[in-house]
Amino acid sequence: MTHRFPDLASTPCGEATPPPDQMLPGVHPKVLRDELVAAAEWVSQYLSSLPAGPVSRPMSPRRRARLRESPLARTGAELGEVLDFVREEIAPFPTGNGHPAFFAWVNSPPAPAGIIAELLAGAVNATCGMGENALMDLERGTVRTLADLAGLPDGTGGVLTSGGSMANLLALATARTWFLTRRGSGDGPAYDRDHARLTLYYGAQAHMSVAKAAACIGLPAHRLRPIPTDAHDRLEPAALRAAVTADLDAGLLPFCAVTTLGTTATGAVDPIEPVTDLCRSVGMWHHADGAWGGLGAAVPALAPLYRGIGGIDSLTVDPHKTLSVPVGCGALLVPDPEHLHTAFAHRASYLTASEPDTLPWLSHSTVELTRPGTRALALWATLHHLGRDGVSTLIEYYLSLAEQLRDKISAQPGLELLAGGPWPVACFRITHHGGDPDALHVRVAQRVQAAGRAYLATVSVRGHTVLRACLCNYRTTTDDLDLLIREVIHAADAGHQPPPVVNERPAHRQ
Amino acid sequence: MTHRFPDLASTPCGEATPPPDQMLPGVHPKVLRDELVAAAEWVSQYLSSLPAGPVSRPMSPRRRARLRESPLARTGAELGEVLDFVREEIAPFPTGNGHPAFFAWVNSPPAPAGIIAELLAGAVNATCGMGENALMDLERGTVRTLADLAGLPDGTGGVLTSGGSMANLLALATARTWFLTRRGSGDGPAYDRDHARLTLYYGAQAHMSVAKAAACIGLPAHRLRPIPTDAHDRLEPAALRAAVTADLDAGLLPFCAVTTLGTTATGAVDPIEPVTDLCRSVGMWHHADGAWGGLGAAVPALAPLYRGIGGIDSLTVDPHKTLSVPVGCGALLVPDPEHLHTAFAHRASYLTASEPDTLPWLSHSTVELTRPGTRALALWATLHHLGRDGVSTLIEYYLSLAEQLRDKISAQPGLELLAGGPWPVACFRITHHGGDPDALHVRVAQRVQAAGRAYLATVSVRGHTVLRACLCNYRTTTDDLDLLIREVIHAADAGHQPPPVVNERPAHRQ
Repeated sequence: MTHRFPDLASTPCGEATPPPDQMLPGVHPKVLRDELVAAAEWVSQYLSSLPAGPVSRPMSPRRRARLRESPLARTGAELGEVLDFVREEIAPFPTGNGHPAFFAWVNSPPAPAGIIAELLAGAVNATCGMGENALMDLERGTVRTLADLAGLPDGTGGVLTSGGSMANLLALATARTWFLTRRGSGDGPAYDRDHARLTLYYGAQAHMSVAKAAACIGLPAHRLRPIPTDAHDRLEPAALRAAVTADLDAGLLPFCAVTTLGTTATGAVDPIEPVTDLCRSVGMWHHADGAWGGLGAAVPALAPLYRGIGGIDSLTVDPHKTLSVPVGCGALLVPDPEHLHTAFAHRASYLTASEPDTLPWLSHSTVELTRPGTRALALWATLHHLGRDGVSTLIEYYLSLAEQLRDKISAQPGLELLAGGPWPVACFRITHHGGDPDALHVRVAQRVQAAGRAYLATVSVRGHTVLRACLCNYRTTTDDLDLLIREVIHAADAGHQPPPVVNERPAHRQ
Repeated sequence: MTHRFPDLASTPCGEATPPPDQMLPGVHPKVLRDELVAAAEWVSQYLSSLPAGPVSRPMSPRRRARLRESPLARTGAELGEVLDFVREEIAPFPTGNGHPAFFAWVNSPPAPAGIIAELLAGAVNATCGMGENALMDLERGTVRTLADLAGLPDGTGGVLTSGGSMANLLALATARTWFLTRRGSGDGPAYDRDHARLTLYYGAQAHMSVAKAAACIGLPAHRLRPIPTDAHDRLEPAALRAAVTADLDAGLLPFCAVTTLGTTATGAVDPIEPVTDLCRSVGMWHHADGAWGGLGAAVPALAPLYRGIGGIDSLTVDPHKTLSVPVGCGALLVPDPEHLHTAFAHRASYLTASEPDTLPWLSHSTVELTRPGTRALALWATLHHLGRDGVSTLIEYYLSLAEQLRDKISAQPGLELLAGGPWPVACFRITHHGGDPDALHVRVAQRVQAAGRAYLATVSVRGHTVLRACLCNYRTTTDDLDLLIREVIHAADAGHQPPPVVNERPAHRQ
């Protein structure tokens, strides 16, 4: 007799559903079908109704504690409880980035094609690190497409990551291995001696993930060099050259310079070619962090700023920022992928392929071994749905919204535009209110968030805490820009009063 | 007039669908609803029909090249092409781990509740690194539940990761920061001097991700110490002590020892308490890599081997291995989470919360900043559907299957059981065939894979390449065990002939 765990496919459709205690983790096929369809119906309704609700909703401490502290029940639950739980406890309390009036950080809403892909890839459940399967070849294809959009040369390789922070980590580790291997310092006392002298350079406006990744790969703070930026927040090549020269004179080993394409605070693009030239002349790796702005070469209005991008050594891009692929989908692109393999190829006896592989495994380009296929499929689906023209049209739409928002801010009495661009962001301040302007801006952001009709955050620009609105939501319209301005003015008019205490609103049932 | 990008919600249901060139990336709500439901219907049918098809299917070089090389079209495609593409080009060519007769590596099929959660979390698209939203509190709750199942103390914290490799990386970086900070070597020349003397210890059967993570955090190969294992593949505490003592005598700095709970090759569990005792006595961190076997304390039959687990410093677990959560879902659990925050808390001005947070951000426990909520929701859904009893019943089912498989191998003329356990795996060899046994086992695995009715891989056990079958699929039945044995015997009877050349079969249309 067959010994069988209660199974997905064990009971033909149409028979009675077995009782719950025999269903774990198997599920009657009809129950599974009905729950999948119910979830799909709910998702479509949720996405359609989202703009009508508040951007975000405060959660009561009790509700938050319940999510953190509820113990796992002894017995399992029916499959339908997953959707009930999301509808009642999760979806009403989002980050807010699905809503058209969300302007904080660089967080996009999910693309429809990407959502469908998440479902399909979850069911296929491939593991994309080793051996062969269709999703691994698709990942190689999406890497190639991203490289092409970014203006990198033919033959560029790379790997998808959970986001920009991981891509930056892989880049720094690759640069370090490349640098030490060339010096014959890949191991032994030579490694110890040289590793302790490595120095890293990045613009003062670089994303904090660069310094964080440096700490993770074993570079202490005293060997990190934030380089001054110019009046437009771009890394100063002359200052970079001076810092590198000083370190070389001190017997240190400059191994990598990081430029930023689309700084988080103000959307600036660092100069590319002068940094590449310096890197070539002193034997450094040039990594560009384009988590937000890495695909600028695909947009005619931005392309001149990306001249020479084909000469860099590695590039971070974040399709979950620029292209609305569901989180998390980042990528590291490397024109000469052999450098990536040198840093990350490790084998073990249980990973010997039965047949010789014609292509390097994807796990040989990253830290991960068992890797999700969701990133590749969601990225492919989103790109395929957009098309090449759709990619540039989408980014141009954000540029146009940002230009309009900056114009509206400049025209609005009581507001002053401070910075922003070329990537679509506006940093601005409230004028004529007296008191501590930094504290005022923090309170205004709090009030706007609490009112629930729009959402923006603050940022430090040249030492002052100011308001920041980012445009990376394809559902945002000019009406939402007007709404944001109204909300900011309204919150500013409340002056220096503390923001209201907001109680949890009744949950919105989608 | 409102300036609006063609939008998801811009056209009320019932109106004519706008032409494709105006739909990108917006989609008519009815089109989105229909495509989501079609995808859900397909997924349920795919999962039900999966056991009737082959485990895996070879892909023609042309088909593979098409996935890698097709350029992105200029214009976008209809949303429905995503499902068509998956049905025809992706799903027929899987890793195979969804099929009940797949026995390679440690790759599970996806849990139904996890698949539904992937869809829902993709639509909510939260970013789980900073600020507040419901999925972040849920992630904290799932970490707490995993810690409880694993037998770690109250107050244990941690973070979800893409898998075990990332969790091991975070663990080593945390151990390094803890060790250097205690010595006052967190930066400056003291860091450089001490970092160059750090040494790391792990059993010779540890997963290769440990050495790979060590390389990534800046430890060269000459300071890594694989420690001999005993006749049951377990790390030898006496050998560990001898290695640590020798390094201390040489002026090196032993900072971390890694035990493995469930080795990949044979399922062994390293001794826990003796390693903790040694770590305490010399000031080392004890990290346990339980990617496969980290939840053994929740299973009565295994619990005695996990005595003292509450005393370790960190634990890797992989819910995408043990619990069938869709890939990728791993976790690092840390009894004193302050150590994790010391290693990973970085702030930037654009990340200043408007309101003081009551809890540390999840990005302060990991490399990632923008982080997916899919891991937390898919893990919660799978756990909630199983219940606490379901978790132990599931693992016990695998233990029972492995015991039966080992018995069948032992009873089968022509096969010899070599190793396996306590975690559910069987390593075995073919007897009486003459010639090079290593090459024979590689060819037998190739033949079994090519026939498409079952799938297993090889592994090196005490210097010999042998066959390995792992039990981590809740759809596997005893019939599948008999099938595997038949397939292996059949392939072995073909002796030393080269395996057949397999052409691509017609794609199976689900």
